[in-house]
Amino acid sequence: MKDNFYIYIQELQNTITAKLESLDGKAVFREDLWKRPEGGGGRTRVIEEGKVFEKGGVNISAVHGPLPESMQNYFGVGDVNFFACGLSLVIHPKSPMVPTVHANWRYFEMYDKQGTTVDQWFGGGLDLTPYYLFEEDATHFHTVCKEVCDRHDASFYKEYKLKCDEYFRNTHRDEARGVGGLFFDYLRPSEKRSTEDWFAFVTDCADQFLMAYVPIVERRMKTKYNDAHRNWQEIRRGRYVEFNLVHDKGTLFGLRTNGRIESILMSLPPRVQWKYDHKPKRGSDEEKLLQVLRRPREWV
Amino acid sequence: MKDNFYIYIQELQNTITAKLESLDGKAVFREDLWKRPEGGGGRTRVIEEGKVFEKGGVNISAVHGPLPESMQNYFGVGDVNFFACGLSLVIHPKSPMVPTVHANWRYFEMYDKQGTTVDQWFGGGLDLTPYYLFEEDATHFHTVCKEVCDRHDASFYKEYKLKCDEYFRNTHRDEARGVGGLFFDYLRPSEKRSTEDWFAFVTDCADQFLMAYVPIVERRMKTKYNDAHRNWQEIRRGRYVEFNLVHDKGTLFGLRTNGRIESILMSLPPRVQWKYDHKPKRGSDEEKLLQVLRRPREWV
Repeated sequence: MKDNFYIYIQELQNTITAKLESLDGKAVFREDLWKRPEGGGGRTRVIEEGKVFEKGGVNISAVHGPLPESMQNYFGVGDVNFFACGLSLVIHPKSPMVPTVHANWRYFEMYDKQGTTVDQWFGGGLDLTPYYLFEEDATHFHTVCKEVCDRHDASFYKEYKLKCDEYFRNTHRDEARGVGGLFFDYLRPSEKRSTEDWFAFVTDCADQFLMAYVPIVERRMKTKYNDAHRNWQEIRRGRYVEFNLVHDKGTLFGLRTNGRIESILMSLPPRVQWKYDHKPKRGSDEEKLLQVLRRPREWV
Repeated sequence: MKDNFYIYIQELQNTITAKLESLDGKAVFREDLWKRPEGGGGRTRVIEEGKVFEKGGVNISAVHGPLPESMQNYFGVGDVNFFACGLSLVIHPKSPMVPTVHANWRYFEMYDKQGTTVDQWFGGGLDLTPYYLFEEDATHFHTVCKEVCDRHDASFYKEYKLKCDEYFRNTHRDEARGVGGLFFDYLRPSEKRSTEDWFAFVTDCADQFLMAYVPIVERRMKTKYNDAHRNWQEIRRGRYVEFNLVHDKGTLFGLRTNGRIESILMSLPPRVQWKYDHKPKRGSDEEKLLQVLRRPREWV
């Protein structure tokens, strides 16, 4: 399974970066290969200063070795070995009319010292962070999410949409990071569903990523905007930074387990502002976004 | 003691904001009074878009009540009451030639349910974060720090300078936030030194803050700079954000104990950039700064 999934995400990285490059039309991804001293490594691809994409990363990694102590404590396990691989992407478009998108699909295995697999699971999801809310965009994104889920289990969309709303929340501001999508974790084999079934579900999700996001980019990338729109985008990007550095488990683990810093922090937006106590005007488009972020909505 | 110290920091806030306003010559501090639902409150003063200061906050607060559970765990104590007051300031100048400065002086008391004081201490310090290193500025700042320390104990400067270097460190990048200053905590009464002695030391430090910082501002505020200098400043400000959101105990406690978000996050810089894997040119001024941040130096 681990080989199958790693082959899959390598191809997926190629597909996604090729499509985003063709959409951008100017910038191309720069590739960095890196090795983890304790075992494994990754292939980081970053695009910057494009016509459409101001900054974005589509990274894969496959790491293995003894499970670091901090993760032993986190998972409540002893001294085991692990293997983890996955693809992570964050795309920050230049235009405030085009939403930021994040997605991640990952697979994890743990072994005892005899090499026997003692645990294995998939995790991941995808979520959308608009700066100006076009309801049809949120609905499109969620419709693609729901269609994938429904192909596998009628209960998945409701469950993983809720998990996404709960997870991507700046609790210190009592607001969502964006309009959500899907989030799932610890998808373990059970009587009902094998690891192969979870593989089919997760790769089906991942295959639909471009379908969920690209039509939104195409629809909004030529919309005119002014400096006020751009300021708002940069202020909202500050909230993105707050989420990633204060709350995001993946980022914090990476920073605390000696991950490759530049690959982890490629998720941070290119240009950001913090203004003291900024509040949008009543009834403005900016305030409408905040209302939706305060109370997650059903989009499908 | 708590009344004395709170009166002291109220006056100190007035002195510092008056001086910074006169130095800026354009912007003035905006004042927000706020109350904490569980007891106490604060007086936040923020300056934005000045001629010299792009963003800065000089805040005081005095809060009390039952110690929140997360802090009980942190301090390893049971269900006690507490009182905490302090002044916190962060000043982000517009010019990359003028360093950012941070300072904090605080006093903490804990009481059992009968109202008996079971613990009390002072904490705080001040530290400087340049974007371009002028060695004489770092030396001036540290000289003021050392002179204050030496008036109270010949061992203080060495000890608190080292603590500052250790604390204000982006461990995930293995570099210091800036060129340091002083950092001390848990200054409790002992046979050698009473709470009144610590009060004398901490207020002496605080009284010297303007002496430590203002001459540097005056020296550098008219130095010419270009867009490249400014870009570097904004990239380095990203490191400031990383420290405050990932490592700074005060910020994280504030976020987790229902503090006033806008007062806590006033410390974040106004305009920030993250570039993937940015590395300054060999031998450049930017690289010289990094070398100093990697290995803290003795400035006096």
